[in-house]
Amino acid sequence: MSRPTNASTRNAASGEPYVPRLEPRYREIASFLRAPLADTLDGLDIALVGIPFDGGVSNRPGARLGPREIRNQSSLMRGIHHVTRLDPFDQARIADIGDVRFTSVYDLEQVSDDIAAYYRAIREAGVIPLSAGGDHSVTYPILRGLAADGPVGLIHIDAHTDTWDVFQGSKFHHGGPFRLACEAGLIDPVRTVQIGIRGAQNTTQGWDYSDAMGMRVIFMEEVDALGIEGVIAEARRVVGSGSVYLSFDIDSLDPAFAPGTGTPEVGGLTSLQALQLVRGFRGLPLIGADVVEVAPPFDPSGNTALVGATLMYELLCLLTEPQLQSSPS
Amino acid sequence: MSRPTNASTRNAASGEPYVPRLEPRYREIASFLRAPLADTLDGLDIALVGIPFDGGVSNRPGARLGPREIRNQSSLMRGIHHVTRLDPFDQARIADIGDVRFTSVYDLEQVSDDIAAYYRAIREAGVIPLSAGGDHSVTYPILRGLAADGPVGLIHIDAHTDTWDVFQGSKFHHGGPFRLACEAGLIDPVRTVQIGIRGAQNTTQGWDYSDAMGMRVIFMEEVDALGIEGVIAEARRVVGSGSVYLSFDIDSLDPAFAPGTGTPEVGGLTSLQALQLVRGFRGLPLIGADVVEVAPPFDPSGNTALVGATLMYELLCLLTEPQLQSSPS
Amino acid sequence: MSRPTNASTRNAASGEPYVPRLEPRYREIASFLRAPLADTLDGLDIALVGIPFDGGVSNRPGARLGPREIRNQSSLMRGIHHVTRLDPFDQARIADIGDVRFTSVYDLEQVSDDIAAYYRAIREAGVIPLSAGGDHSVTYPILRGLAADGPVGLIHIDAHTDTWDVFQGSKFHHGGPFRLACEAGLIDPVRTVQIGIRGAQNTTQGWDYSDAMGMRVIFMEEVDALGIEGVIAEARRVVGSGSVYLSFDIDSLDPAFAPGTGTPEVGGLTSLQALQLVRGFRGLPLIGADVVEVAPPFDPSGNTALVGATLMYELLCLLTEPQLQSSPS
Amino acid sequence: MSRPTNASTRNAASGEPYVPRLEPRYREIASFLRAPLADTLDGLDIALVGIPFDGGVSNRPGARLGPREIRNQSSLMRGIHHVTRLDPFDQARIADIGDVRFTSVYDLEQVSDDIAAYYRAIREAGVIPLSAGGDHSVTYPILRGLAADGPVGLIHIDAHTDTWDVFQGSKFHHGGPFRLACEAGLIDPVRTVQIGIRGAQNTTQGWDYSDAMGMRVIFMEEVDALGIEGVIAEARRVVGSGSVYLSFDIDSLDPAFAPGTGTPEVGGLTSLQALQLVRGFRGLPLIGADVVEVAPPFDPSGNTALVGATLMYELLCLLTEPQLQSSPS
Amino acid sequence: MSRPTNASTRNAASGEPYVPRLEPRYREIASFLRAPLADTLDGLDIALVGIPFDGGVSNRPGARLGPREIRNQSSLMRGIHHVTRLDPFDQARIADIGDVRFTSVYDLEQVSDDIAAYYRAIREAGVIPLSAGGDHSVTYPILRGLAADGPVGLIHIDAHTDTWDVFQGSKFHHGGPFRLACEAGLIDPVRTVQIGIRGAQNTTQGWDYSDAMGMRVIFMEEVDALGIEGVIAEARRVVGSGSVYLSFDIDSLDPAFAPGTGTPEVGGLTSLQALQLVRGFRGLPLIGADVVEVAPPFDPSGNTALVGATLMYELLCLLTEPQLQSSPS
Amino acid sequence: MSRPTNASTRNAASGEPYVPRLEPRYREIASFLRAPLADTLDGLDIALVGIPFDGGVSNRPGARLGPREIRNQSSLMRGIHHVTRLDPFDQARIADIGDVRFTSVYDLEQVSDDIAAYYRAIREAGVIPLSAGGDHSVTYPILRGLAADGPVGLIHIDAHTDTWDVFQGSKFHHGGPFRLACEAGLIDPVRTVQIGIRGAQNTTQGWDYSDAMGMRVIFMEEVDALGIEGVIAEARRVVGSGSVYLSFDIDSLDPAFAPGTGTPEVGGLTSLQALQLVRGFRGLPLIGADVVEVAPPFDPSGNTALVGATLMYELLCLLTEPQLQSSPS
Repeated sequence: MSRPTNASTRNAASGEPYVPRLEPRYREIASFLRAPLADTLDGLDIALVGIPFDGGVSNRPGARLGPREIRNQSSLMRGIHHVTRLDPFDQARIADIGDVRFTSVYDLEQVSDDIAAYYRAIREAGVIPLSAGGDHSVTYPILRGLAADGPVGLIHIDAHTDTWDVFQGSKFHHGGPFRLACEAGLIDPVRTVQIGIRGAQNTTQGWDYSDAMGMRVIFMEEVDALGIEGVIAEARRVVGSGSVYLSFDIDSLDPAFAPGTGTPEVGGLTSLQALQLVRGFRGLPLIGADVVEVAPPFDPSGNTALVGATLMYELLCLLTEPQLQSSPS
Repeated sequence: MSRPTNASTRNAASGEPYVPRLEPRYREIASFLRAPLADTLDGLDIALVGIPFDGGVSNRPGARLGPREIRNQSSLMRGIHHVTRLDPFDQARIADIGDVRFTSVYDLEQVSDDIAAYYRAIREAGVIPLSAGGDHSVTYPILRGLAADGPVGLIHIDAHTDTWDVFQGSKFHHGGPFRLACEAGLIDPVRTVQIGIRGAQNTTQGWDYSDAMGMRVIFMEEVDALGIEGVIAEARRVVGSGSVYLSFDIDSLDPAFAPGTGTPEVGGLTSLQALQLVRGFRGLPLIGADVVEVAPPFDPSGNTALVGATLMYELLCLLTEPQLQSSPS
Repeated sequence: MSRPTNASTRNAASGEPYVPRLEPRYREIASFLRAPLADTLDGLDIALVGIPFDGGVSNRPGARLGPREIRNQSSLMRGIHHVTRLDPFDQARIADIGDVRFTSVYDLEQVSDDIAAYYRAIREAGVIPLSAGGDHSVTYPILRGLAADGPVGLIHIDAHTDTWDVFQGSKFHHGGPFRLACEAGLIDPVRTVQIGIRGAQNTTQGWDYSDAMGMRVIFMEEVDALGIEGVIAEARRVVGSGSVYLSFDIDSLDPAFAPGTGTPEVGGLTSLQALQLVRGFRGLPLIGADVVEVAPPFDPSGNTALVGATLMYELLCLLTEPQLQSSPS
Repeated sequence: MSRPTNASTRNAASGEPYVPRLEPRYREIASFLRAPLADTLDGLDIALVGIPFDGGVSNRPGARLGPREIRNQSSLMRGIHHVTRLDPFDQARIADIGDVRFTSVYDLEQVSDDIAAYYRAIREAGVIPLSAGGDHSVTYPILRGLAADGPVGLIHIDAHTDTWDVFQGSKFHHGGPFRLACEAGLIDPVRTVQIGIRGAQNTTQGWDYSDAMGMRVIFMEEVDALGIEGVIAEARRVVGSGSVYLSFDIDSLDPAFAPGTGTPEVGGLTSLQALQLVRGFRGLPLIGADVVEVAPPFDPSGNTALVGATLMYELLCLLTEPQLQSSPS
Repeated sequence: MSRPTNASTRNAASGEPYVPRLEPRYREIASFLRAPLADTLDGLDIALVGIPFDGGVSNRPGARLGPREIRNQSSLMRGIHHVTRLDPFDQARIADIGDVRFTSVYDLEQVSDDIAAYYRAIREAGVIPLSAGGDHSVTYPILRGLAADGPVGLIHIDAHTDTWDVFQGSKFHHGGPFRLACEAGLIDPVRTVQIGIRGAQNTTQGWDYSDAMGMRVIFMEEVDALGIEGVIAEARRVVGSGSVYLSFDIDSLDPAFAPGTGTPEVGGLTSLQALQLVRGFRGLPLIGADVVEVAPPFDPSGNTALVGATLMYELLCLLTEPQLQSSPS
Repeated sequence: MSRPTNASTRNAASGEPYVPRLEPRYREIASFLRAPLADTLDGLDIALVGIPFDGGVSNRPGARLGPREIRNQSSLMRGIHHVTRLDPFDQARIADIGDVRFTSVYDLEQVSDDIAAYYRAIREAGVIPLSAGGDHSVTYPILRGLAADGPVGLIHIDAHTDTWDVFQGSKFHHGGPFRLACEAGLIDPVRTVQIGIRGAQNTTQGWDYSDAMGMRVIFMEEVDALGIEGVIAEARRVVGSGSVYLSFDIDSLDPAFAPGTGTPEVGGLTSLQALQLVRGFRGLPLIGADVVEVAPPFDPSGNTALVGATLMYELLCLLTEPQLQSSPS
């Protein structure tokens, strides 16, 4: 298997080749998970993508700075997983392809179209995207780009169901992507599970919508009662065997673990639970995944971005392992 | 039921009425839980009160800034509880009545008298107070104001028993309110439970006093062994069916969840446990409650004040629900 | 002269009246400069207004949280100016009238219309507004509301000329308000002075526009050469004797003094220079003023909001003193 | 001259003697200016003293933590002054004698008595104290201890005149030490100069008192007009040739340089100006000096404590140089 | 039993003796656990030692500042353990003997020799050391100094096995101390347990070495499955009844609890688990213990150093209790 | 002139080419000054280089993280200078060539050799380097690589002369690079000027060496007396017309402007003075320049790195303008 080449893999002064990913962690250009940079999808299995957009938030902004800081903290990641002993970079051809570009960041509908077009191109190139937001509004256009063959299953880990309706005159905000996706036939509500939901609301609109559509909503109290293993089992039962997308909102974690987010809700997952949860979805036919709502300005210790980077690493392991199984590689 | 009206519920420029609590969270004047402001107790069921006093601390000061910052973070709260589906603002007439005023902040005994007089007026108006400290010394005068009909039961969640004697020449410090309350016949020690106690001490005086008086002290090790459900059951057994006051010291939480406090003790409750614990006291005949010892200067991420605000919200739910049950409303 | 009354000026428990502004600074509801809250313009001379909007930024967001934090830090302000020995609250009837409300925060043009309507109402009530942003895009609609009688003079203190054209598909961003105001005939470019300009740009478009329109641009180098007294003299010469609006972008200060802003530029004004500059405009016929671009998430020490609050206080002195002179009061 | 010996000047494992002050700066027990610790005044010329008390503040507390953090940051100090090429530790016998102890930190009058007794003992031992507060209320009892031979001259560098009267029922707060000292005949108001004063007030009481007593008040505007050299000349003229005490309130600096203080006032001195000002008092017959109001909880970068430590070093140079001149040493 | 005396136990002004450890926590010179300072090993049972060295890190430096900040935060510790009701200062003669001194901090091998010599002297004096790092490279030379009588058992709590080989040309880095100790016969790999291991790696070298040598490696997943009680039982089984050293790397905790470290790994122990784990080793014949890798520059809330101080206190209890049992005291 | 191409200048999904430097500032991979990345020196005029090494510090480490954070903050830079109206990217072919790689970061002499070899290759390729440290020890090997044709002139802006001798057993620390460079004949001491020097020292060794060699040392007091224009004139007189290297230590700034550094010294340059100073060296025949000692862990607001990035931009303007003049380009 050939790896993508890029401008950074040669010592500029000596011409000597080397692998940046293996250098001391404070060195090198900050890319997602220290992956090589690429300006093309050619030859890639997995594309790491940043979506620096937070124009859809309803509360505190800052997630537009998420991709930058996740890239920075992801230098702390390494290759070989301590449980599986597999290195995703040995399993697949992976590159950081940079950020989605926008025609107009001030126009939510146009942003949605720009993102959808970008992911459509990724899908058409046969590449699987692993994305870093940005606020959660970006997941609807990601699904527009990816779910061209009919509705997919959804594993949605979050403090909020994000199935709210129009807010402040727009339906493209970060509280509504899964209502839009459901209405557009991009996700199958019966194959949708929402995990970690909690926190008061001013209307029951979103909760009601999820219920009415038949989504399986596992509130935080039930997470605590079932245990992570129980949640994994229930989620796998819900999504079944078809294609699945996984969307991880960092505010599913308790704000002691992830204060750097726009709408924190006290009483959430621990980091260890989050990692166990994601690892529980090994082998599912994922068509992509994202980590969203990391807002660095509210993250004094940097831990939120570090958790975000670690979750991207775990998701990358998920995305590369089925490929290992299904192809001789 | 009519809600209290206040100066902020009308758009000053257009005259158009609106409900500030339902506006985007970064807007509006910061009041507790986005409640309306009131300058009278008339027509209120529940009064939200700030007690910006930290003259009783033995270590790091800063809790005088607690009410201000809890008000700020409490904009992140909303109305309808995700478990009960009840909105406390539908259950009761609630307002933020501002801060207790002091004659002399430099005289601990005078401060105690000022607070006691303030809460006596609240009780006499038939209003239930939900307070934000300030250091824990404020709970003794709150009880002086409220427990006029004889000793009440006490649910006390804290890292410290706060039953210490004179320190540095005064008994009105934040380590002794429950010794004073017990000596004054304001609380019934046999109906008192102290939850989450831990951390070394230089004398055993406070622990010994609690034991000698018959208080039920549940150290953190026992919390861990019993589980939160077990702790709730035991606490309900202790306080029985009579009137109860609930005092929540934020340092009962582990400092990873609540670093912003004057006397942090490693190895405490998680936020989720704290919420579950408070919710476990639904239906008890509470005469009031407080959240104390939030010290914003030591809280770089703001999470301590956010947890404090969330606990106030949960306590508000407790305080408004019995009213729902006992009155046709 | 009667002062506006509001819900906070009476001790809720005792009924005793008092002036919140004179209480210890960590007490009371946080309003701008500790002014009373009002929900009407009736009887006011000066309205303090928050505009919590940052949808127009081109870089780091966060200024939507500016009004909240300026209110918080402005508790450190007091009444009597140490140079003039005048207290603005003795000179005029002043209230904090809350925040501008928006129909849709996601639609820049609609936001502009909402703000314009709000300020039109203020002007029609004969009240002078002193505003806290929010990003600088808000000043264009403020001027739409206020400059109904033809173009006004402008004193604009900023690191950037904010006369740029369409960016990312919109002209309503924070880099263009004074181009829009000039094109709409709201400001007289020949009576416009821009002070403190600096920092590299990717095009010369804004600088060129200011030059072409005849605005007087005083770059930071010239500020340093002229001294603050010289700058004041030149600015007063430019604006002459007609009506003037003053807009203060906090990024005119060096980021050592004001790091909490979206587009910091190294090498700016000191706080002392900023105060001296504003004080130099005493006696000018100001129709309003604003302080914008305070972004609390980037302000770890809180000093940016404190400087913003202090500038609001100085501007309030400017706005109330002419009134003193021209009316027997 | 023999230096004080202390427990730290011998390697505990090897027995080898060494000078902690010359070790790498991140090593060793944190004492003021890396001076040896002493538990006696015997053999000392200069005593470095901490006064960890902030019970007299009117606004934000935290200065009780000042001595601890100034000790920490003062490890960055070294010996030989780059202008004079003198090392104070070669000029005098200097030790950190620890903190003043209190009988009751909750009783301002008792605290005042405790401090006065402590400094009386220092004076009687023929030792000159250089102190770190604590809030400014501590300077009145310091003067009670030191000015036993009649009123002394005073150089007072501060944003506030600290000549206010009773506040919240007490006259021992941090806004009144120099009124108390004047009334008690400890300072000569005509030989008193107050430098850097600024910021609004709710009454003119303190300014009026200073004026009425004949103190020379140099407001910040005059500091700017005179320049530091002019201020030094004027201050030396005022204090004349008799004994002088110097009290440096860190809030005289602009909060960009010293955010970590309880009552910051925008528009103050730069660090360079502060150092130049202190150095301008070389040769004056100082009977002691202090640096007060460093409040570490509001000092995220640590710079306030670093400035405080540097000022202590400069003051130590002042205190040790006259001794050099007047004694053969 | 006589306690070590030191320069701080007498009020310098009054001559009155007192115990610094019992003073309010914000007072006094910051020593480890408020122990007296000593410059000799004579008469000591336990020596508290700082090792301010981080020249062996592979990633983020800063642990050289660990001893300073652990001393600072350890003022929050007190004496009597709330479970055992024993005060270690009643059980043994304990002092803070300062920091290890280095001949050349730039030469890792020389640093190793300096530390080894220092601990050899401690051992030869019959004193047990409790140390605060510094990075983990310091534990190899500690063992060189202490394990003179043949290999000892090792309880090693960490996110990493620290059994890696040469990195960047040196074997004395912080990722390899236990490989070196094993190779040098200082620890018995079969009596070695490593607890809390997790996180990806770029090679399996360290994991493989631990396995090959027969060390018992309990990865975080197994910690979660066994529970802390199960881990304690397994660890006690592994180390058996012989002499044991305990090394606690603060990065074994989840970075929500301990962000201030050089190589954080998401998904670790909680503080409560860490305390329970350490307490589980009561009665073991420990020859010493350390807490390493606290890096204050990455610890905005100070909690990492506070956890470090609390762990030192718990370890001190472990170290002093066997002595109680074996001697009449 | 052709610009270097790199992997990031094409939209990976659409294939559309674009210039990352002109995108919104929070987007794109963080490179120095948003320059393209390159893995070869071919076709370059100017190479931007990171040297992530802080093994030579004597106090607080962290500068190894400087290049990463300067790259991050340098996204706030743009192209066209507001004074000269020139864009360096129009003047020269510029790329970020990544970081110097090290054989062994634990061996100071080896690091020095690695850096020297790297810069020798740059010089031999006819490229001018603009570097970001790293601690100041890196400048000696930079000069080893660049000054092959005999001693060059030196403009050295710093709080310290960095001409100290062996410290802790090594001469390759960050306090000695210019003594080494002088001894090695790489700089001409008579053509060396050191600007901004201040702060106490424990020996006069470094000051004495600079004096003895004939270097022109302008202490901070003289900077203040001469003014920046005077300093520029004197520095230009000293360096004359030959080749010059410029080294800018960020600790020359006052720590209010640049707290994020290892050895802060109170009383330094303002940011505005620093920019003016650098701009004063236009037209000098610079063979390279560096900005060193930015230590992000001590920089809570990020301003130190922002100042560092701005200085790199100003230096880039200096480096590209002579080329403009001397070649038709």
